[in-house]
Amino acid sequence: MIKVAINGYGTIGKRVADAVAAQKDMKVIGVSKTRPNAEAFIAKQRGYPLYIADLSKKAAFEKAGLTVAGSVEDMCKAADVIVDATPGDIGVTNKPLYEKLGKKALWQGGEDHEVAGFSFNSSCNFKDAIGRQFIRVVSCNTTGLCRIINEVDKAFGVEHVHAIMVRRGSDPGEIKKGPIDAVVLDPVTVPSHHGPDVQTVLPHISITTMAMIVPTTMMHMHAVRITTKKEVNREKVIELIKNHPRLGLVKKSAGIKSTAELKEFAMDLGRQRADLYENCIFEDSIYANKNELCFFQAIHQEADVVVENVDAIRAMTSLANDGTASIKLTNDALHFVPIQNNH
Amino acid sequence: MIKVAINGYGTIGKRVADAVAAQKDMKVIGVSKTRPNAEAFIAKQRGYPLYIADLSKKAAFEKAGLTVAGSVEDMCKAADVIVDATPGDIGVTNKPLYEKLGKKALWQGGEDHEVAGFSFNSSCNFKDAIGRQFIRVVSCNTTGLCRIINEVDKAFGVEHVHAIMVRRGSDPGEIKKGPIDAVVLDPVTVPSHHGPDVQTVLPHISITTMAMIVPTTMMHMHAVRITTKKEVNREKVIELIKNHPRLGLVKKSAGIKSTAELKEFAMDLGRQRADLYENCIFEDSIYANKNELCFFQAIHQEADVVVENVDAIRAMTSLANDGTASIKLTNDALHFVPIQNNH
Amino acid sequence: MIKVAINGYGTIGKRVADAVAAQKDMKVIGVSKTRPNAEAFIAKQRGYPLYIADLSKKAAFEKAGLTVAGSVEDMCKAADVIVDATPGDIGVTNKPLYEKLGKKALWQGGEDHEVAGFSFNSSCNFKDAIGRQFIRVVSCNTTGLCRIINEVDKAFGVEHVHAIMVRRGSDPGEIKKGPIDAVVLDPVTVPSHHGPDVQTVLPHISITTMAMIVPTTMMHMHAVRITTKKEVNREKVIELIKNHPRLGLVKKSAGIKSTAELKEFAMDLGRQRADLYENCIFEDSIYANKNELCFFQAIHQEADVVVENVDAIRAMTSLANDGTASIKLTNDALHFVPIQNNH
Amino acid sequence: MIKVAINGYGTIGKRVADAVAAQKDMKVIGVSKTRPNAEAFIAKQRGYPLYIADLSKKAAFEKAGLTVAGSVEDMCKAADVIVDATPGDIGVTNKPLYEKLGKKALWQGGEDHEVAGFSFNSSCNFKDAIGRQFIRVVSCNTTGLCRIINEVDKAFGVEHVHAIMVRRGSDPGEIKKGPIDAVVLDPVTVPSHHGPDVQTVLPHISITTMAMIVPTTMMHMHAVRITTKKEVNREKVIELIKNHPRLGLVKKSAGIKSTAELKEFAMDLGRQRADLYENCIFEDSIYANKNELCFFQAIHQEADVVVENVDAIRAMTSLANDGTASIKLTNDALHFVPIQNNH
Repeated sequence: MIKVAINGYGTIGKRVADAVAAQKDMKVIGVSKTRPNAEAFIAKQRGYPLYIADLSKKAAFEKAGLTVAGSVEDMCKAADVIVDATPGDIGVTNKPLYEKLGKKALWQGGEDHEVAGFSFNSSCNFKDAIGRQFIRVVSCNTTGLCRIINEVDKAFGVEHVHAIMVRRGSDPGEIKKGPIDAVVLDPVTVPSHHGPDVQTVLPHISITTMAMIVPTTMMHMHAVRITTKKEVNREKVIELIKNHPRLGLVKKSAGIKSTAELKEFAMDLGRQRADLYENCIFEDSIYANKNELCFFQAIHQEADVVVENVDAIRAMTSLANDGTASIKLTNDALHFVPIQNNH
Repeated sequence: MIKVAINGYGTIGKRVADAVAAQKDMKVIGVSKTRPNAEAFIAKQRGYPLYIADLSKKAAFEKAGLTVAGSVEDMCKAADVIVDATPGDIGVTNKPLYEKLGKKALWQGGEDHEVAGFSFNSSCNFKDAIGRQFIRVVSCNTTGLCRIINEVDKAFGVEHVHAIMVRRGSDPGEIKKGPIDAVVLDPVTVPSHHGPDVQTVLPHISITTMAMIVPTTMMHMHAVRITTKKEVNREKVIELIKNHPRLGLVKKSAGIKSTAELKEFAMDLGRQRADLYENCIFEDSIYANKNELCFFQAIHQEADVVVENVDAIRAMTSLANDGTASIKLTNDALHFVPIQNNH
Repeated sequence: MIKVAINGYGTIGKRVADAVAAQKDMKVIGVSKTRPNAEAFIAKQRGYPLYIADLSKKAAFEKAGLTVAGSVEDMCKAADVIVDATPGDIGVTNKPLYEKLGKKALWQGGEDHEVAGFSFNSSCNFKDAIGRQFIRVVSCNTTGLCRIINEVDKAFGVEHVHAIMVRRGSDPGEIKKGPIDAVVLDPVTVPSHHGPDVQTVLPHISITTMAMIVPTTMMHMHAVRITTKKEVNREKVIELIKNHPRLGLVKKSAGIKSTAELKEFAMDLGRQRADLYENCIFEDSIYANKNELCFFQAIHQEADVVVENVDAIRAMTSLANDGTASIKLTNDALHFVPIQNNH
Repeated sequence: MIKVAINGYGTIGKRVADAVAAQKDMKVIGVSKTRPNAEAFIAKQRGYPLYIADLSKKAAFEKAGLTVAGSVEDMCKAADVIVDATPGDIGVTNKPLYEKLGKKALWQGGEDHEVAGFSFNSSCNFKDAIGRQFIRVVSCNTTGLCRIINEVDKAFGVEHVHAIMVRRGSDPGEIKKGPIDAVVLDPVTVPSHHGPDVQTVLPHISITTMAMIVPTTMMHMHAVRITTKKEVNREKVIELIKNHPRLGLVKKSAGIKSTAELKEFAMDLGRQRADLYENCIFEDSIYANKNELCFFQAIHQEADVVVENVDAIRAMTSLANDGTASIKLTNDALHFVPIQNNH
């Protein structure tokens, strides 16, 4: 039973905590918060011991009716693995603590590759992650790109990828970030960081990415064009999606053509927090013409990396020998089956 | 075991179906759809027999893998009570069918009071609804207003209510309605229909309402000012909210100050579809100054009437003797406790 | 010819600069920027000498092709009056400079009343402002409230005002501020600062205000209810609006019922920057019932204070003897007539 | 002096009317409206005779203070050229009238190519349009694509174009269309109609397009990748943009990285209706790597076709011999210079 601490109980951290808690081979021994906000009450509801970075704030937590179990350092000492889900660029500042304590730790994609020296995706490089002390789970967009690019590469050989990321401006529960009425180039320059980031996992892939931000809270949308070495076969693409445990196919029959309808479907299905762990590839958008493959995929920015975090824990603690086995354990514990099986 | 049919399995209908299915004294015998969209697959997942208005579309449903149990008339015949959750102004056109079959039916607030001749709110007029053939459950906004106004009236005597409804432009899963970047007066004229609608339930209340639409999918927000006959006591207002099974208090300690944070909290709590059945009254906004009471309350447009529908079924079929008893049955079956008990 | 410097050439500053430049009795002798962004090129296009706060950035401006005339202190020395249009809470930090130089200065409503000890509205207290060294022009919302409340008070006697401000989340050209999909109570507490702020201009008015932020860039919307000492006459209300040089009546005939349509109309009319200097009161919303008056008014957050700034300059430099005279000069120079004269 | 009638005085029609009125070789003899809304008052302000489709509504117009000059047929009879700016799919129903009267007419891109049998872009095929009775001016997105693709093709030879259109959900003055919080695939299928539409103007270009709709009112954003026959030279690309009278370069020095900041800049510049007639290509996004060229361009959906309409009138009436001459006449009359000359 691997003891897992979640340093940073926010959008990603709270989801990873619940996903870890659902596994049979690991458990949550603590989560950390900096402020006594609504999420702290969720930790209490779930029964996760609550640790805080700054013990001088203990009184503020207790005044709100929240018990403080100790400091973040206390929490880390008690853990086998620390999932660092603090905000981007903060995670790296926690590394000295993890090193001092000699603990295994994994970071999110908001940190640079260098924080861990190894960037992880369950479907692409699980074996290379086995036993590592430090791992970086790549970002939601990079995760979504790696999953599908790797499969297309195995089937047809990837010549070049051109991917445009149309990103949400804020998560649904955020209220300060915009834009309200604009399309923002982020970055203006080409390529965006996503292309090089895919190459931290799949170094041999030639890829150009462009990214923008739009006023929605609901998922990212990728418009992808892949040129291939072998001629693409549309039916085979659909098959490889259907057969992958983390690729989802949004079938034409559901009549879904937007991120909003997709999230509504996930909510209606009863998925926890309406989370979509899988790439949501629109069947009707899959276009194959000789060596050209195009498609749209929606990526749930809050969710797709959650299951990858669980697999990463298993890899670094040698709880599984390969990605397929770990993915099956993770998915089964969450009662997760990709969306094509629900319609 | 009262047999309930849901005519119109959409935003409200799908929620009422699940809420009815959770009760011990009633069951869902069928739901109806006009098109084989994503929601039809949810009905299939839940095991609700699927009926369709136009049998000529049966092939289209079956091609999508959806079994059709029969026509809407077939469904109504098999039911004791029909919950009409078809879109506004459509419901009234179904009345002749219900009359022909001699069935009890209830409509939503999108229909006029005259469709049923009786407008219902569990907390205000349950006893007057017992045994009725036809009932109209008032709209989400009117429900939210009636619940709190009635309590304030009982405690302090209402002199006048001024309520401004800042309404969501579309539900989260809708993609066609706007506005995208505007505040729309809807209607421009004063009073909006909400004031007279409150009076269908609470005829003696003097009230002026004004309404607008803004570009959000997340809940309606009410800004309310009530002048009272007796001097208002702020602590007593907080008490009456805490003691009411459908009034929720958003405590200051949670740090929630927006509809988005509120929905996130409901989702984190694990509420089905992140539904908020209760009025969400912001503790920090409650302002009492002599005979003046002001507060903000957020109303979840998709949810607050759902529990009222269940109670209305119980009233018209004489399954309960008073609102308090029915509300307790409904809430308990849904494991629902107002939000103040979660933080 | 009064020499005016604009300290802070942003949303308000760039508009005040153009409005001042259009007057016969004053001129712009300089504007200030902190960064060489797009607005700096507009200053160049208009021919306004460009001053910068931090002379060490001079090279950055010049590299972009922008000539720097000197420091902000240089600019202030050359001016008779300084319009401080720096961001809220920054303006107050500039006061020692203006005092040191012995210059007249005016601030915007983002500063507290205490910055100047006198809060200004052209229609309400021009005479009290004559000759003053320091003036604060109240915020866009307070300006809009003061204009109409003062007229209603003169005509019917104000008993109490209840005003709800539904505010834009960001200006059209801003891309970082949200919310994207939420209604945010800002503040959660009642009353918002607007009520007390109205009282800095109209101390005898009893008023309760509530405020929220919504995801739009287009104007603020006020829902107002005024109870009066004398019985209200709707036709008289319409008359007093039509006769006021800064109150606009959006007539029913135009079919306008939103902020978006209003801005489109202003743009089509050829108004500079589509600016609406006037309160935009919706004729169809004016509701009078005995001693109760309700209406909606839209307030252009970027524009309504601009003309008030011009008048304030005239008051403090004794260029006019009363508000009526100054308003006429300001409006005429801008070829501005309230919207009711355009449809 | 060519007599021009504008059938459909809406978003495009009102802009074309003003652009035609500014030319020395043509004039507006009438515009048509179906309802007496705000835009009808703008026609009155501009002095354009107002014609209506349905004369039975004459009283409604006159009651609003609007003079009706006659029927749409009357207007068409009096014109040399009719600009049909009625909504998409309505324009084609007007063709029999134009044929009956033997008038020249041009349609917008909302109609199919077949309505006129000739699709027009000033920079690409002006000469082929000379003397034609019927012309279709391609849509805003197709116009933007044709302009730049044609230049790149002339300079480097186009191998293939992959273009993603991220489209605004509604125009700024619209209040009914969404989405509010979603990315909508429109269409889900690949390619979108834009690719084939480009080929109606540039038949030899190989192109794959994908399109989606996002919750903004501000411009469309194109993410474009072109593979070329000759190696691309970045400086040469910048030069060809700078030298084209309808291509705009958003220079890095302005710090603009979004559609909102771009529109703000156009408004500040004093452009009528803040219109951007030019492609707005972001200098910093221009990426050239061997035979690969990528860039972002923003397209003002309300404006870029306006100047093309004027040129089309000149082509069909043989007022100019080539596109270069007509473009110069059109631009000069509007005092229009592409945005790179303003910063």
